[in-house]
Amino acid sequence: MMLANDLDTPAVTIRLDIMEDNIRRVQQHLDRHGIANRPHIKTHKVPELGKLQMQAGAIGITCQKLGEVEVFTNAGVADDVLLTFNVLGRAKTERLMALAARVRRLAVVLDNEVVARGLSEGGVRHGVDVRFLIECDTGFGRNGVQTPDAALDLARVALKLPRLAFEGLMTFPNRDPETREFFTRALELFKRAGIPVPVVSGGGTPSLFRAQEIPMLTEHRAGTYIFNDVMVVASGTATWDNCAMRVRATVVSRPMSTRAVIDAGTKVLTSDQYTVKGYGHVLEYPEAAITNLSEEHGIVDLSQCRERPAVGDVVHVIPNHCCVVSNMVDEMYGVRGERVETVWPVAARGTVR
Amino acid sequence: MMLANDLDTPAVTIRLDIMEDNIRRVQQHLDRHGIANRPHIKTHKVPELGKLQMQAGAIGITCQKLGEVEVFTNAGVADDVLLTFNVLGRAKTERLMALAARVRRLAVVLDNEVVARGLSEGGVRHGVDVRFLIECDTGFGRNGVQTPDAALDLARVALKLPRLAFEGLMTFPNRDPETREFFTRALELFKRAGIPVPVVSGGGTPSLFRAQEIPMLTEHRAGTYIFNDVMVVASGTATWDNCAMRVRATVVSRPMSTRAVIDAGTKVLTSDQYTVKGYGHVLEYPEAAITNLSEEHGIVDLSQCRERPAVGDVVHVIPNHCCVVSNMVDEMYGVRGERVETVWPVAARGTVR
Repeated sequence: MMLANDLDTPAVTIRLDIMEDNIRRVQQHLDRHGIANRPHIKTHKVPELGKLQMQAGAIGITCQKLGEVEVFTNAGVADDVLLTFNVLGRAKTERLMALAARVRRLAVVLDNEVVARGLSEGGVRHGVDVRFLIECDTGFGRNGVQTPDAALDLARVALKLPRLAFEGLMTFPNRDPETREFFTRALELFKRAGIPVPVVSGGGTPSLFRAQEIPMLTEHRAGTYIFNDVMVVASGTATWDNCAMRVRATVVSRPMSTRAVIDAGTKVLTSDQYTVKGYGHVLEYPEAAITNLSEEHGIVDLSQCRERPAVGDVVHVIPNHCCVVSNMVDEMYGVRGERVETVWPVAARGTVR
Repeated sequence: MMLANDLDTPAVTIRLDIMEDNIRRVQQHLDRHGIANRPHIKTHKVPELGKLQMQAGAIGITCQKLGEVEVFTNAGVADDVLLTFNVLGRAKTERLMALAARVRRLAVVLDNEVVARGLSEGGVRHGVDVRFLIECDTGFGRNGVQTPDAALDLARVALKLPRLAFEGLMTFPNRDPETREFFTRALELFKRAGIPVPVVSGGGTPSLFRAQEIPMLTEHRAGTYIFNDVMVVASGTATWDNCAMRVRATVVSRPMSTRAVIDAGTKVLTSDQYTVKGYGHVLEYPEAAITNLSEEHGIVDLSQCRERPAVGDVVHVIPNHCCVVSNMVDEMYGVRGERVETVWPVAARGTVR
């Protein structure tokens, strides 16, 4: 039996009780509101965890990279997969077509005509209908058509191309009221044009428990909720008690009374900050602040701490952004009580293409 | 023959001519000043590149993790290795002892008594003398004893412990005048105490070409110089023409006239910013600004660009921090002219322990 306390550091650990509760709670919420749950597996990249999400009632999974679809398809996780990234270029189109032959329902998103034409040509080459959703930018400022009219225009162009099958509209993340207003207007336009919109897909963990306030959503894609992290806590959607991922780290130096250095830097925690300050929440010393990271060092300001750790002490850090942490390691440890119950290879780690 | 233009994106490419020039130029500079070159292999994590650095005249290599030492030792890169991280705990100490039996000269750094005692106990268990340098914080605010007196005190404690062999002093990065002042005083104290200090080891790429201004340095450890990056250019130590690493990326979306989205996000470029703005320098569109990253998306502000890329165009991004980019991918591509000359597995990628 492997004990959690025996894990050498740094190590990415997952508290199984908390994770299982997160999976159950989110599925129940979406079930209650009649919204299909399509968890984003980029957060964990572990097929076994995708299977747990499917067993809990998910309709299918979301992937961000073709490489993730390949890994999760090879592992037999789901027969219904949405790839929320514009697929472009011959190499990727061929990989997509190979997957389409193996997955019962594989859909992609697109937000421009170049992508639509490439997918259509791939579908023609392989005799495959390519299911697609139109990605809409409802205020996040990333990918997506900018207006409901542009969504309809693109749908009309794509529907004239052979082997493309329109499935609906997609956005990330849900924003209220922008997303609701965008989709309200878009659905009016599509209805008037006589184009059915079977799927309206929203996403994001911070907005998850208010997904029902965007009443046209048929499905929701969230990833982070399975573990939660500092960003989700900062959004008010979770508490520290809902955070399943903890990076186990050792205090390797105490150069001065107010400074500790831990053996977890950007190579585990990453530099992601987005909306939050610092680089993670130290569970044992909640007043401590991780003020700076190098690749292998985490600089911890102890000036606000009454109790302070010694060299050799182990601490547990809830990371700012759990999705990027799973990508930094080859394995994660599932912990229940004192015990390491499972070691998962992060099978889809590093799938950059 | 594989052509660089055929590489699917995102891909981390290295311009071989530039890299070879960087290796040569830095070695010549340090040779001219009689400073030994001990390149830090964390930047590339590729044994073949460590061999090129050794062939060019490096005295040995620097590693930051035991896992890196293991990979580079297995590949037979160098018989003289400095591990610049406090080694702590039974598991790591045992790995260090196994390496000490295989590497002609393996040294570590330490900055506190707990680490010294652990290494001494390991040395006694295995009948091995453990060579160590004392890490000094000369202003960076990371690991290291805080004063020259503290360096001497720690050396005295460590020298009383069995199986520890004092080799010298180490800092990162060189700072002028703080580093010079610290080492001047420390060398006086050690001389007065009758303790020889054979090695004084400095580090960092931005300070590399001024290493000779800290005249007591016997060796210099730099990593980034082999590729260079936005941070090094911002420091004035290199120009864009000296930057060998370029992340090949495709424009996958043009949601509006002033915005492009590329398929390289934090999963390749990382969130590292430190001293610079934005998330990388787009070679083909130098007025473009990568203003935001998600894991798989790079948001590019084109408002200052006269020429603007179309969906499907490929661009090359010089990353902010090359050392963390090599850690994100399983392979890097060595390019000469139009040709991909080599594909290197990033053998020491992900060595978090």
